[in-house]
Amino acid sequence: MEEIKSLIRTIPDFPKKGIMFRDITTLLADGKGFRKTIEYLTERYSDREIDKIVGIESRGFILGGALADRLGIGFVPIRKKGKLPYKTLAAEYELEYGKDIIEIHADSILEGEKVLLIDDLIATGGTMLASIELIEKLKGKVEECAFVIELPELKGREKLEQKGVNVYSMISFEGE
Amino acid sequence: MEEIKSLIRTIPDFPKKGIMFRDITTLLADGKGFRKTIEYLTERYSDREIDKIVGIESRGFILGGALADRLGIGFVPIRKKGKLPYKTLAAEYELEYGKDIIEIHADSILEGEKVLLIDDLIATGGTMLASIELIEKLKGKVEECAFVIELPELKGREKLEQKGVNVYSMISFEGE
Repeated sequence: MEEIKSLIRTIPDFPKKGIMFRDITTLLADGKGFRKTIEYLTERYSDREIDKIVGIESRGFILGGALADRLGIGFVPIRKKGKLPYKTLAAEYELEYGKDIIEIHADSILEGEKVLLIDDLIATGGTMLASIELIEKLKGKVEECAFVIELPELKGREKLEQKGVNVYSMISFEGE
Repeated sequence: MEEIKSLIRTIPDFPKKGIMFRDITTLLADGKGFRKTIEYLTERYSDREIDKIVGIESRGFILGGALADRLGIGFVPIRKKGKLPYKTLAAEYELEYGKDIIEIHADSILEGEKVLLIDDLIATGGTMLASIELIEKLKGKVEECAFVIELPELKGREKLEQKGVNVYSMISFEGE
């Protein structure tokens, strides 16, 4: 896991001063590192009963697409408002200033389907909480939320676990 | 290929009146259909010398992530302006009204690297032309542009081929 972590680039002061941005693109661009990342996730989930991978726009699409292909199951996108062409369900989440809205196709998850939610990184967990809300409104069951990177100081994990949802992250950046 | 085509949903009048939107999310959500799509692409490209898969935000990420994992090579995202955290190169392309800008990380393609560009659909080809410009500015070589869907009436293929670039699409919608 240290090898994967070493491929993540840290960019100070992006998108604004004081933020240490954890940039996964250097990991993705490394063929071996990317494949190893997907293999870890495949190993973790291949024996679980999962019906759909739901990826969060946009970096969750890269990981989620590869993982869905490995597991031979369907991929469902959660996107920013206005991007999905069919009937959607929407959920709001808080940004530092103001709010944002994400959507899922209303027919993309069937009642009772087991869902793995995936994104590249968990910070405060706001987007993922809204995503869980969408899956539950469609009467799907969130089996787990998976991330490559966790920023524990922002306490996103606690928020998700309070909802009774399992959280898995491969790599953690704490006090770095 | 007919099986894959049958999994694509057509939505009339999205995003505006008169447009028949070809919605790939129903294909992606079908585990067998999605895997078959990636297998076709893997078969096509596994014996070609390709160094990087470059996917166009956002649906190109889903296909490109899976294909990069299959081929064991790196994945590089092309994103809308302002999304990539490191030093970028930008290219402009025309929209019906106004312009838009896409970016790539300046260090993501090395000189001489062979690149497969991928997106879900080719219409007028504007975004892909701008993407080719970015790869060429970085001194990469575009081996091919791959799409699941082609809309031949919009003549995107011709524009790309005039640039000397190979174009591959799995499925075509013409006069439907």
